[in-house]
Amino acid sequence: MDRKTEISTARDRIDGHAQVTPVMDSHAFGLGYPVAMKLEHLQHTGSFKARGAFNTLLGTDVPQAGVVAASGGNHGAAAAYAARALGHPAKIFVPEMAGPSKIALIERIGADLSVVPGEYANALSMAQDHETATGAMQIHAYDAPATVAGQGTCFAEWDAQGLQADTVLVAVGGGGLIAGALAWFQGARKVVAVEPETSCALNAALQAGAPVDVSVSGIAANALGARRIGGICFELAQGMTSVLVSDEAIAAAQSALWQAHRILVEPAGAAALAALTSGAYTPAPGEKVAVLICGGNIAPDPLSG
Amino acid sequence: MDRKTEISTARDRIDGHAQVTPVMDSHAFGLGYPVAMKLEHLQHTGSFKARGAFNTLLGTDVPQAGVVAASGGNHGAAAAYAARALGHPAKIFVPEMAGPSKIALIERIGADLSVVPGEYANALSMAQDHETATGAMQIHAYDAPATVAGQGTCFAEWDAQGLQADTVLVAVGGGGLIAGALAWFQGARKVVAVEPETSCALNAALQAGAPVDVSVSGIAANALGARRIGGICFELAQGMTSVLVSDEAIAAAQSALWQAHRILVEPAGAAALAALTSGAYTPAPGEKVAVLICGGNIAPDPLSG
Repeated sequence: MDRKTEISTARDRIDGHAQVTPVMDSHAFGLGYPVAMKLEHLQHTGSFKARGAFNTLLGTDVPQAGVVAASGGNHGAAAAYAARALGHPAKIFVPEMAGPSKIALIERIGADLSVVPGEYANALSMAQDHETATGAMQIHAYDAPATVAGQGTCFAEWDAQGLQADTVLVAVGGGGLIAGALAWFQGARKVVAVEPETSCALNAALQAGAPVDVSVSGIAANALGARRIGGICFELAQGMTSVLVSDEAIAAAQSALWQAHRILVEPAGAAALAALTSGAYTPAPGEKVAVLICGGNIAPDPLSG
Repeated sequence: MDRKTEISTARDRIDGHAQVTPVMDSHAFGLGYPVAMKLEHLQHTGSFKARGAFNTLLGTDVPQAGVVAASGGNHGAAAAYAARALGHPAKIFVPEMAGPSKIALIERIGADLSVVPGEYANALSMAQDHETATGAMQIHAYDAPATVAGQGTCFAEWDAQGLQADTVLVAVGGGGLIAGALAWFQGARKVVAVEPETSCALNAALQAGAPVDVSVSGIAANALGARRIGGICFELAQGMTSVLVSDEAIAAAQSALWQAHRILVEPAGAAALAALTSGAYTPAPGEKVAVLICGGNIAPDPLSG
């Protein structure tokens, strides 16, 4: 099955489990052109990650030992949510940098949670040890076919909702979401990768000609801070447009979404828009652009007080 | 022109000025039935009020002295926004209870703002004095035909977006929004009025058989705290279903919207949903329900820090 067909299959599979997220067009960013948006941060657990998690679990026989995931926060919440919804136990490893807001989210869902010192790669290593020791099934955060196909349903759904765009901007961490976009659109729409300057595994890989380790930091690091781009993404990303945005540009886009539309997102959720509002990507005259708003798990939690 | 035709006319008039707001269906509130929602809090200035303001200003010759409005916050922001967009000066009177978040919003838009001690009625009185003294045109917050027709476009738009609902729940303050709903649906869908127990001008009027003064307090008072229901609303509301919700129920619905969907709203924006989540309104088996999410100007502003 090719990757586009896998996405269509995934869409049928997760129907009724994942949330169909709304779309809107905005003229309110002062750019002189409209921006189509899909509000994927309204997805269950606040990010697109629920799509990949449901597709993974629904597409296989889950072992008695259940599910294990390593996550900067959003994927762990999604894996825990999908596991609970489908009746499987879940063990989630998160790095400290996930932060209290995302850690509390996972705890609320009810998973068995371990907070691991250091960055995402350390949590991944512990998740792999757990998988070996218990026979639990790992849901990879981005570099597995079922994850990529699940995230790709976001774009299949957007097409079905009447997406009008020449170009779709997508934030990149480990590359599962943008791999889904590239696999779905297959060149029918231009896909632009947007990464923070401080966490840019795809950009570095495209420059080096192969996935390479990068250092990760900055305000979106707990969502976009993958140390190395996923292999599936790298394969699909050859020749694509990749742009970088500063932390300041991300924070400004986050503020613009709130001020213009009362859309409150975490920094990663505003990164793709930041490419437009900062001028890192400037559409050609008449080029219609679309932005996926991908994550809403902001810290601190505005209603925690 | 009857009120439904006025709404159709208003919809054409404000096209391109007001935001078309997205819709979604949720199963995530644990109610055992789906809830259709229109995310009208994503409207310009964070509430449906922009619709009535644009319809009012676009439907008349605005005097040189510009526009004046009295407001608990949301209407003032909308009037200021529409005036600025159309090139008119705006003078806005808000009661202290509007709170620093909404006051800052109006200041950011750039209107001439006066903060008035006490409640909404005091601000309205000062706006009327200003109108008399300067010749500025008043945009009434709820009890004027152009305001009601503008707010009614919300429901015309929702129908055009494929609304599937037997029953639409709408929060009520002064009654402009629900008057628009009643005028648009004309009995084709059941409209349920939802008010806080602590600010229930419509419920009190329906019980008394005439608009009466009520006291206003509680967590949604700056948006829903009208002392007396508007005459247009009262006329249209005869025989309708009216339910009350506690402040605790409103806060719980506000939290549910955030936890389930990363939809962050002010208390008034969650009041209609609170009727379902608290059980104040229980749909009959098979009855399809829809909730208008009407306002997002939460305090404190989560990005102000």
